[in-house]
Parts: sequence; structure tokens; C-alpha cells
Amino acid sequence: MEAVEVFGEKDFLACCGSTRFAKEMASAAPFASLQEAVDAATDIWFNKVDINGWLEAFAAHPQIGQSPSSHHKSPTSAQWSKGEQSTALATATDSTLQELSDWNSRYHEKFGFVFLICASGRSTPGILAELKRRYQNRPLAEFETAAGEQMKIIELRLAKLFSTKAEGASTTNA
Amino acid sequence: MEAVEVFGEKDFLACCGSTRFAKEMASAAPFASLQEAVDAATDIWFNKVDINGWLEAFAAHPQIGQSPSSHHKSPTSAQWSKGEQSTALATATDSTLQELSDWNSRYHEKFGFVFLICASGRSTPGILAELKRRYQNRPLAEFETAAGEQMKIIELRLAKLFSTKAEGASTTNA
Repeated sequence: MEAVEVFGEKDFLACCGSTRFAKEMASAAPFASLQEAVDAATDIWFNKVDINGWLEAFAAHPQIGQSPSSHHKSPTSAQWSKGEQSTALATATDSTLQELSDWNSRYHEKFGFVFLICASGRSTPGILAELKRRYQNRPLAEFETAAGEQMKIIELRLAKLFSTKAEGASTTNA
Repeated sequence: MEAVEVFGEKDFLACCGSTRFAKEMASAAPFASLQEAVDAATDIWFNKVDINGWLEAFAAHPQIGQSPSSHHKSPTSAQWSKGEQSTALATATDSTLQELSDWNSRYHEKFGFVFLICASGRSTPGILAELKRRYQNRPLAEFETAAGEQMKIIELRLAKLFSTKAEGASTTNA
């Protein structure tokens, strides 16, 4: 018997903090494969989640270089966020972290939302350089770039979701 | 002696409901000509007002086909809005107004903000056709289109502001 991947709204909310995204994904589920889930997520994120939903999803991320709040509405999201920033943390010094914090503030002041980047595998100096480059963008272009980064994060996290369930399934079958 | 156009935040807020826009325009003033004001407004609207400011500006408009609230924070904006919709009102029937209202609701449900169009000189059937066409857009594309319409409205209203002051000046000089 094949294992059927059954994910709920809470699982999808850990991938992306937009409630509309999570609801639409839960309606579209179950998915036969990770690729099918990614395809559905791409359509939902870019075509069905509205501007307010994008802002809601961005707001669910901690400021880069900082730990997620312990009161985060999705503990799984908070835990994954830490993992995604592990390279950044390993390459951080007090002074780069301070500079990152200053630039995060400038960014937030200009754009009105948190600087969002798919941090997986990126060093702190690399993230800082990208922040400074993107700070020059006009607001709409930056909004679109941030939405693209959120989509990369969604893909990574859907893969985690599927691999977690697969591990669970093989343990059960062993 | 040349008349100097002195406009304040309140005047610019009547042109565009974003407080950041109004503040930046007031800082950039005075303007030697309407064209100089339009150039400054274009830069501020597209490059300095953030996503939240765009949403704030959109929210200051009544739903098309409806009268602005009598509690509107800018009475001048509410009055101008009525004038801009005069062609639409003249070409409206009960059934097109009902259809417009239904489509406005669908639009708001999909995009999370009011349908915005520079209504000046447009008939109700023309506005309705445009609403149905734009409803097909993906959220980001529609957000950008709406921002472009807001910019057209800003231009029209800056022209009104300048002509009002010019009238005032010529009356004074007469």
C-alpha cells in the first residue's frame, strides 16, 4: 500500500505565513509528489494570494540575523528559519551582525516590510551585500523580488515537509 | 511680483491619500510650475512611497459608482472624486450600476483593495469593461496597474490645485 501524504493547513502555514496560501494548499491537497505540491504552491502564491497576503507572509519571518520570536505562531516555521540561517550564523561576527541589524532597519524604514532572503547556504557577508544592493530598488521591484525569495523558501520547506513524512512512513513500515 | 504657489500637506493629501506622499511633496515644495510638481510627484509616488503607502492611497478612494463617505478625511478629495465620476454617472443605468457594484465586490475579494481607475471622461459601460478585463490580472500586475491609475489621478488633481490657486491669484490681482 502506498503512503498518501496528508498535510493540513498548519503544515502549509509553516511553509508560508499567509493564511490564504495555507487554506488554498490544504484545499488543493493531497499531492501525489513533491513536484505537484510545488506547482500548486507556485500558482497559489503568485496568482491567488493578494498583496496583503504577501505582506502577511513576509511578517511571519524574523529579521535576518535574529532568532524568531519564541511566540511565533508556527513553531515549525521558527525552527526551520533557524536551520536556514545556520551558514549565516557560522560566518557572522559581532561587527557584521551589527551592520546587518543597521541595514535591516534602513530597509524596513524604506520598504515597510522585513528584508527577506532565502538564506540557506548564504554567508552573513553575502547576505549583507545583497541587502545593500536590493536597498537601491524601487518599492514595487523590491516587493516582487521579496515575493520570489519567499517562493524559494516555500519550495525548500515543502521538500522538508515531504522528507519528514517520508522518514515517518519508512519508520512505520520498518 | 510673481505669485509663489504655496501648497501644504493638506493640499497634497487631496491629490493622493498617502501621508508619506503628502509629507514628501510638502518638503519638495514650492514648485515653480505644474510640470515641476508633476515630476516631483512621479518620483515620490513610484520611488519613495512604499507598498503600505500605495494601499493607504487606494483606500482613500470611494468604490467607483458610489459617493465618497461624508466623513472622508479630505473633503477636497471627496469633492474632486465626484467631479471625476460625472461622465460615469451621466451614462449609468440602475442595471449597469448594480453590475458595477457586483464586480467591485469580486475585485475587492480577489485583490484586497478597491478597483481604482482614473474615471475622468469615462462612461460606466467603459469602466465596467475595464474592470472585467483587469480582474483577470495576477495580483502584482494589478497592483502596479492601479498605482499607474493613481498617478494619473495625481496629475489631474495637481492641475486642479494649480488652476485653483491661479484663479485665486488673478482675483487678488484684479
